[in-house]
Order: sequence, then C-alpha cells, then structure tokens
Amino acid sequence: MLSHNQTKFLTALQVKKYRQKYRKFIVEGEKMVEELLLQKHFAIDALYGLERRDAENDAWPGEVLEKFNPVSAAELKKVSAMSTPNRILAVVDMPEQPPLPTLPQRGHWFYLDGLQDPGNLGAILRIADWFDMRPVFCSPDCVDAYNPKVIQAGMGAFLRVPVFEIALPDLLAHAPGLAVCGAVLDGDNVFKTALPERSLIVIGNEGRGIRAEQAALLTRRVSIPRPTGGNAESLNAAVAAGILAGAFSAE
Amino acid sequence: MLSHNQTKFLTALQVKKYRQKYRKFIVEGEKMVEELLLQKHFAIDALYGLERRDAENDAWPGEVLEKFNPVSAAELKKVSAMSTPNRILAVVDMPEQPPLPTLPQRGHWFYLDGLQDPGNLGAILRIADWFDMRPVFCSPDCVDAYNPKVIQAGMGAFLRVPVFEIALPDLLAHAPGLAVCGAVLDGDNVFKTALPERSLIVIGNEGRGIRAEQAALLTRRVSIPRPTGGNAESLNAAVAAGILAGAFSAE
Repeated sequence: MLSHNQTKFLTALQVKKYRQKYRKFIVEGEKMVEELLLQKHFAIDALYGLERRDAENDAWPGEVLEKFNPVSAAELKKVSAMSTPNRILAVVDMPEQPPLPTLPQRGHWFYLDGLQDPGNLGAILRIADWFDMRPVFCSPDCVDAYNPKVIQAGMGAFLRVPVFEIALPDLLAHAPGLAVCGAVLDGDNVFKTALPERSLIVIGNEGRGIRAEQAALLTRRVSIPRPTGGNAESLNAAVAAGILAGAFSAE
Repeated sequence: MLSHNQTKFLTALQVKKYRQKYRKFIVEGEKMVEELLLQKHFAIDALYGLERRDAENDAWPGEVLEKFNPVSAAELKKVSAMSTPNRILAVVDMPEQPPLPTLPQRGHWFYLDGLQDPGNLGAILRIADWFDMRPVFCSPDCVDAYNPKVIQAGMGAFLRVPVFEIALPDLLAHAPGLAVCGAVLDGDNVFKTALPERSLIVIGNEGRGIRAEQAALLTRRVSIPRPTGGNAESLNAAVAAGILAGAFSAE
C-alpha cells in the first residue's frame, strides 16, 4: 500500500529538480533491481514491488527485506516511468560524484555534446559498457544521466559506467594532449582511420550535431561513409556512437 | 480550429487499429512535412499547423494550401504524439503495399525479428536509408512501421525505405539462396568476416534476441566483439544493427 506522500515522492523523482534535491533516483524492473542487489556501490533506500522475496531458498537478505514495501500493480503503474511497469522499483541514493579521474595513456572515451534524448544516452552508456570506454563525459546541457528513461535504456550500464558532466575545454585542460575526434560529414573514412591511442569521441546533439565551439576543438575529423544510393541525412546519435566505437575497437 | 470529430480522428490515428481501419497515418514536424511536400509517392490528406505558408515568394502550391487547417498550439499539442509538437502535422494516405520485390543478386537487407521499440525501428529504417539497404523486412509481430514514434525516429526514412511484413520462411522461399546472417554471442568477429554477397541480417527482439525458430535458419553467425573489460550483456538493437551495417558496408 502506497501512502499519498510516498506516491508524491516517487512521482517527483521522475523530475530532475527533485532527484537533485533529494539526491535519489529510481531503478525499475526485476532484472536491474537484481543486479543492483548484487553490488555495493549504490545504496538502496527503498523497494516497492508486487512480491516480497522471502522463500527460504531464494530470499533477499534481511537488510533488503526490511526496505521492501508491497504495492499493487495499479499503485506501481501510478509511480512508474515505464509504460509497462515490471514488478519492482528501487529508490537508490545518488552517489557523490568522485573527483575527475586521471585518464590512462590508452583509451577512447565518449564526449556527448548536448545530447537530449534519454533513450540515446542510455544506449550510449550501454555501448561504453560493452566496449569498456569508461567513464562517459557529458556537456552540462545533456539530459540527466539519472533520468528514469536513461536508466531504463542503459540496462544496468549506470552500475558500471560513471558519467561526468564537464565542459569540453575543462576536460581538455584536465587531460592535456588528449586527441578529440568527431564525426562530421566530410571527414576521413572511419573504417580506414586509426584513432590516436588516447582519444575522445565527440557525439553531437540529435538535431544540430556538434556545436561550432566544440567542433573548433576537434583534432581529428571522421565520417561514417554513406554508400552511393544511400539517402539519410544523418544517423541516430546512439547508432553513430556505436558504429564509431565498433570501428575503432576493431583496429 | 479543430472540431471535436477532427480531434477524435487525429488522436485515433496514434493507434494501429485505427490507422489500419482508415489507411492513414500521421507525419509531424516542419522538416518532415517539407520533405513530404517535395515527393509524389505519398498523398497528403490534410495538414494541421500553426501557420499557413502563403507568402508570395515562399508559398505552398494551391493544392497544398487547400488541405491546410489552421490550429492553435494548444490544439496541436492535444493531437500530437510528440512531447513537444513542432508547428505542423500531416495526415497521409497509407500507400498500398506493393508486391514483394525480387531481390537483386547483390545486397544486404535487415530482417527484424519481433522488434518492439518504435524508436529502434525508426533508427533502423534510418540506417537502411543511410547504407542503401532497401527494403527492410519485419516479422509480422514487429511494431507497426506507421506508428508515429517510428515515423518520428526515422527522420523521413519512411519516404525512401519500404517495409515488408513477412515471416522469415516465406521470405526465404521467395528469395532462394539468400544467406541469413545473425548476431549471436559466439559467432565470427563481425569486423573480420565477409558476408555473402546477398544476405539478410537478422536483428532480434530487444528482450529475447533472435527467436529459436529463426536462429535455426541462420547460415552465418557473427558477433560484435566485446573487448576484455567490457561488461554489458548486450547492445541496443538499433546500435547493433548500425554496427553490423557499418562493418559489412566497409568490406
């Protein structure tokens, strides 16, 4: 049973302002909550679900059971950000942002320039998780990484891929000598280009691409070749990020 | 001004059942409507927008002006499937499905096995549009290609990329000798594998991947290599489709 205040609180966490105020966010669905229970970095504040798992041979540990609140499917639907809520929802404490790490001498990392679509950010975190491109850097005007749709689309990537919000010039000041690669329409064929060993891969906003002030900082311009007969003006931002990550990981 | 019946009709077109009943679908936003006006294959039934373009040097042709209905921003918001409606919306006649084309002796085409997410289908149509992989084939249980979110995410790909709904065995009977390539966890490295000249690329459903009965029809099993240190269990379906299309186009 959800009290009026609980309903209000859970619904508020769908909004960035309240996530930042309370320093909490929501993780939904059985698979991701199971993953969450298996790790130590993120602290669970509360669980709301259809069933409490307390069967002898498959029980949650005591400290998890204590945090569990049984709710009805209708109640879950009311507070869920998913169109089809999946049995359980966790309220999780937002960890303190650690200091910006020193980047190793080899590696490729995404820099997202004003990405707005939560599905795209989630898919890109998943790419970074797959290709071991951690952390991911975001310009300060990107969609919030704790947005419930980002968490959902990321399929648990938030557990492993830290996200840092930082202006590109500040990041370059922090990591001098970092190459800055970006996909543009008239760059080198991405399948025939080797990236410098230590490179950022800049992915632009869905509508306008890479902003002029960031484009001015590119040290390597690449393109995904469009064969004769191809017509699309552009690719989806996460798809482009995947093709770049794949091409450069295949070198 | 939108009448009650117009509002009801436009809202109904967000639902597959009514799109099929009326054989019409909705295209939203200035950019896509402009593209629509420039082509001949799709017939526009009506336009609903904030401004009628009738300035002397930038006017729509007379037959377009006749179909235009001025609406307020609030009315547009009411009937739009977009969270931020973009000035204009077109009701478009669904063209008759042409007969299944004979596939040329060279080419790669997507076969989507139960894809459910409209954003993914839109992104994949955009990939097919970019890499000239037309048409796209869908299993009969895929999300409807005229879903407003598919149209939106496809960024005009529907204008150029035909979609055929067909069971995989029927498609293979129609195009004997077609190779069937699918991404699985233990296949050949996609960056080191050449595809047969005439191949389907099967993309599985977001949750369960490629169904066993389709997997049994694969003649080539490939994998996107996950480097040591990578953790994600899988990639987003559209991202995987993009990486495969990119890798095979780069051969």
